[in-house]
Amino acid sequence: MMEDVARRWLEERGLDLEALALLVADLQRPYIPDLRLEECRQSLAMVLTKREVQFAILTGLTLDYMAETGVLIEPLLSIVREDHPLYGVDEVLALSIVNVYGSIGLSNFGYLSKQKPGYLGQLRKPGRVTTFLDDIAAALVAAACARLAHRAGPGEEE
Amino acid sequence: MMEDVARRWLEERGLDLEALALLVADLQRPYIPDLRLEECRQSLAMVLTKREVQFAILTGLTLDYMAETGVLIEPLLSIVREDHPLYGVDEVLALSIVNVYGSIGLSNFGYLSKQKPGYLGQLRKPGRVTTFLDDIAAALVAAACARLAHRAGPGEEE
Amino acid sequence: MMEDVARRWLEERGLDLEALALLVADLQRPYIPDLRLEECRQSLAMVLTKREVQFAILTGLTLDYMAETGVLIEPLLSIVREDHPLYGVDEVLALSIVNVYGSIGLSNFGYLSKQKPGYLGQLRKPGRVTTFLDDIAAALVAAACARLAHRAGPGEEE
Amino acid sequence: MMEDVARRWLEERGLDLEALALLVADLQRPYIPDLRLEECRQSLAMVLTKREVQFAILTGLTLDYMAETGVLIEPLLSIVREDHPLYGVDEVLALSIVNVYGSIGLSNFGYLSKQKPGYLGQLRKPGRVTTFLDDIAAALVAAACARLAHRAGPGEEE
Repeated sequence: MMEDVARRWLEERGLDLEALALLVADLQRPYIPDLRLEECRQSLAMVLTKREVQFAILTGLTLDYMAETGVLIEPLLSIVREDHPLYGVDEVLALSIVNVYGSIGLSNFGYLSKQKPGYLGQLRKPGRVTTFLDDIAAALVAAACARLAHRAGPGEEE
Repeated sequence: MMEDVARRWLEERGLDLEALALLVADLQRPYIPDLRLEECRQSLAMVLTKREVQFAILTGLTLDYMAETGVLIEPLLSIVREDHPLYGVDEVLALSIVNVYGSIGLSNFGYLSKQKPGYLGQLRKPGRVTTFLDDIAAALVAAACARLAHRAGPGEEE
Repeated sequence: MMEDVARRWLEERGLDLEALALLVADLQRPYIPDLRLEECRQSLAMVLTKREVQFAILTGLTLDYMAETGVLIEPLLSIVREDHPLYGVDEVLALSIVNVYGSIGLSNFGYLSKQKPGYLGQLRKPGRVTTFLDDIAAALVAAACARLAHRAGPGEEE
Repeated sequence: MMEDVARRWLEERGLDLEALALLVADLQRPYIPDLRLEECRQSLAMVLTKREVQFAILTGLTLDYMAETGVLIEPLLSIVREDHPLYGVDEVLALSIVNVYGSIGLSNFGYLSKQKPGYLGQLRKPGRVTTFLDDIAAALVAAACARLAHRAGPGEEE
């Protein structure tokens, strides 16, 4: 199943979903004071059930991995490996994750992607390619936050 | 509740949801042969429960109505009333509806918006402003189709 | 001409383009050390020549103004006046501005829209409705930054 | 230079830019009666100077090629090779091309992508993978049309 595949890729690329759940809690607690960490975990889990999200993860992390292992064809290899500053395909893929819960996740995504608070700042490591992983991690957190915001609203339905 | 508001606006602007359900059936039957009309109605109904969709409907149809009754301020009044060919805000709002079920609805939306098959071709009437309604109707059909496609897939979950 | 209309709306709603140019300079100087303020002003001016940008400004600021003066129809009036936290149409319009220079502006837009550094934090004033203005200002800065980044790159052409 | 790289990939994957220029002419002549084929060629050429467009082409066609030659990693290999109906990353990349000239290109893109008129219907050949090429070709035509529409408007500036 595609969800298992996406989760396995996240794990193999070293992404700690528990750390993402903590970021979700940090970002949403100002708006939902009694938010429990378990709800943040569940929100992330729901985001990962969406096909659009799974395919974005699969495509981005495959590109990261193939750049890291050198099997990607040039010049895409160098562009992804060096995270070329004008290469926006990573943001484009991440946006397709954020959009699943509507436009209100955009600000959080941009903030996380630019400031890389906490765990997000530790993803880059020597020898690893995290061009897509960086933006995908920020997008997963932003989407989980947007989902919680929608459900905390009055008379909200899924 | 916002869903009631959105449905009331659709009704007041003359949109026939049953006609949209028939378009959904026409478009998806080639891929899901045993698709029942009731499933198309339900898919449209689920699309209308999404906040992003409700706010896009509310904003677009309010603008149509205020242009039709002349209370919108110039020059936006003339632009919306005449459906200025370079005014893309109607497409932008419609896209936010389509995006809720991912990018696979894009082709259907563009096709419906350009070709205006069946009922969609009958929305424009003398004296009515349907600049936003046209694109919103196409977007609702495209989103309902995308939702059905996602759920018809193997091992799909919401 | 539509550009004059858009500029007039920005002025009437109290937006200081010079303050936006300073934000562009702050954001881009880490990447382009010898960036002059005049180049930031010109980049903003070029962003304002784009039709997509002009129509987004015109639509958003007309909605702000009609909400402020109470002529917008309910419930859109209350939603825009109170900047309803789940209302994402302001972000959707802003994104259509950012997209004109590609996806690399997304991070800056989100950061500016969430953190509201410097001048952006001073836009909200008692009695004023700035629901759309806030996001449009952030989007104009992000787009001007993205345009500079594209042109500073090697072998870049417009 | 990135533009040369993108053009070389289009050529190697068998895309005939002259056939795309003819599609641009067919689509825009109803709106610009005296449109010359040379203007359509130039509009396509201008679209290809945009970085966002070049990176989308490079990424998509590299994935098509690696799927065709079997070097892509599973399960992305099978998904791209068989153009999985729920895989929307091809549409997402194409949309980033269309967006460069604003939202008015969306309808044309969707129409071209769904109906595949003329040359677009001949891109798929046995043994070739054209999952991304199909949508990129439609996006290039839609973007070139949108650019012409913007410039044909009154008082338009780039």
